Amino acid sequence: MIYDLIIIGAGPAGTSAAVYAARQKLNMLVISKDVGGQVAEKSVDIENYPGFDKISGPDLSKHFADQLKSNNVEVALDEVLKIEKEGNKFIISTSHNQKFEALAVIIGTGADPRPLEAPGEKEFIGKGVSYCSLCDGPIFRDKTVAVIGGGNSGFESAVFLSNYVKKIYILEFSEVLRADQENQDLIKKNGKTEVITSAKVLKIEGEGFVKSLTYQDRKTNEEKKLEIDGIFVEVGRSPATAFAKGLVEFSERDEIIAQQETMQTKTPGLFAVGDCNQGKYKQIVTAAGEGAKAALAAYEYLQKTKK
Amino acid sequence: MIYDLIIIGAGPAGTSAAVYAARQKLNMLVISKDVGGQVAEKSVDIENYPGFDKISGPDLSKHFADQLKSNNVEVALDEVLKIEKEGNKFIISTSHNQKFEALAVIIGTGADPRPLEAPGEKEFIGKGVSYCSLCDGPIFRDKTVAVIGGGNSGFESAVFLSNYVKKIYILEFSEVLRADQENQDLIKKNGKTEVITSAKVLKIEGEGFVKSLTYQDRKTNEEKKLEIDGIFVEVGRSPATAFAKGLVEFSERDEIIAQQETMQTKTPGLFAVGDCNQGKYKQIVTAAGEGAKAALAAYEYLQKTKK
Repeated sequence: MIYDLIIIGAGPAGTSAAVYAARQKLNMLVISKDVGGQVAEKSVDIENYPGFDKISGPDLSKHFADQLKSNNVEVALDEVLKIEKEGNKFIISTSHNQKFEALAVIIGTGADPRPLEAPGEKEFIGKGVSYCSLCDGPIFRDKTVAVIGGGNSGFESAVFLSNYVKKIYILEFSEVLRADQENQDLIKKNGKTEVITSAKVLKIEGEGFVKSLTYQDRKTNEEKKLEIDGIFVEVGRSPATAFAKGLVEFSERDEIIAQQETMQTKTPGLFAVGDCNQGKYKQIVTAAGEGAKAALAAYEYLQKTKK
Repeated sequence: MIYDLIIIGAGPAGTSAAVYAARQKLNMLVISKDVGGQVAEKSVDIENYPGFDKISGPDLSKHFADQLKSNNVEVALDEVLKIEKEGNKFIISTSHNQKFEALAVIIGTGADPRPLEAPGEKEFIGKGVSYCSLCDGPIFRDKTVAVIGGGNSGFESAVFLSNYVKKIYILEFSEVLRADQENQDLIKKNGKTEVITSAKVLKIEGEGFVKSLTYQDRKTNEEKKLEIDGIFVEVGRSPATAFAKGLVEFSERDEIIAQQETMQTKTPGLFAVGDCNQGKYKQIVTAAGEGAKAALAAYEYLQKTKK
């Protein structure tokens, strides 16, 4: 069977695309590792998704999942390894050794946490080093932790962690913080957090479990050591988009280049939405908006292709 | 006082922009005729806004209004007549003879219904001719009505009207219908509706109240008359954007030209979001996504301007 449309990913971008495509009666499959994507892992309540004053990430994900269900969207829990195009047909291979075919494809695979790439990091993953404060934060009750990264994700992690831990250091590589004023104010209020800018993490050490972190003060070149029990890495995300190689162009951050009005990539019938494309502002609602645009553009593409 | 940011319009685009700007702690004012915009007038439940399986337009508008309130957003119920720029400052004049100043402006004024421009139309406004089925539909219980326009708005109006009226004609000027398959299927199901394509409305007649509509069959050139009690005009919308003349460029449909990644117009610090810009796909969630992008872009613009 050849699907009209395959959507890869079921975060806000993929879900939105699927809801729109379902209403266009497209014969469609969603392939995703999970439903909700990064939203499901949000460590603080979401207060900037229009329509909800305040909602937790897991709850918003649940709404997305329910909406897929009530639109009878078929979701294959699987991971895409490769996309090829033969004639006007896309062929998708997955990690469960499946092959799927479709006339149009929307990629909305989001982005995965970027590692710090500091000595000791890999060794202590799951032993004090974490990339998900929502998942692992509660383990560190009354402990001291460091959050690496002074952007919104770092500050949001710290806000969440402050419910559990005794003390938080936020380490930011550059001189200035990139987090919203709102997030910075929240951190000031909780009184548990020390923010250190111009800090380059040099190594993570411990015995079985993390015990310390050494960083260089980039202004004085001095090396400093912090006694800590856990490290949350929030230094950005990079999209896992290598599977589309050959069919799309990438930005220097490995984001798929897509036209911002229709989300079309350089390959006709192939669209990229949400955090995996080069769009500057990566928010839940911008991802959802892009998903809708791509589904409508895919529908128009299919009308022409199927004639 | 000079505001950091003035947002014109409080539909999904303006609301989303305001929520984002509030979280950036911008000193901001929203100027709008109402809160909710077109969403508040939606005649059928909304089933394609991600996060809500099904919600009425008025209910979603209420959520938007609540979210503005809980973010302490100041809304001036007023209409903008003119925007000028002096140095790096925008000056906004309103119909209540007010003048407001801001360093950045986001325009999200949506679009107003386009008139049919048929003889009799103006004469019978409020006497059978309507541009809002949600507002006026219930008046036509057990009557016969015509909906002019075979796009989604026309079909959605017809779906809503079918709860009240006895019989509906949908007249579409072109040979093909532009409405989604989903909407077309719904209309087929209700069994009350006759769809007439290639129909050019020639005149509307009545005595005190609408009694008939005459159209030309564009295939045969034959003139035909329909006995009807009401006419709902759904032939598209045109943005009321003349107030920005001089500062922006317009598409041939009077839409403001904006860069689709940051929503910036040709004037630095001036942004256009939602139905009033040239974006191809005009949906509630795409408008909300654009609002968020513009607020974040305006924030960055202000950081540079205020230095």
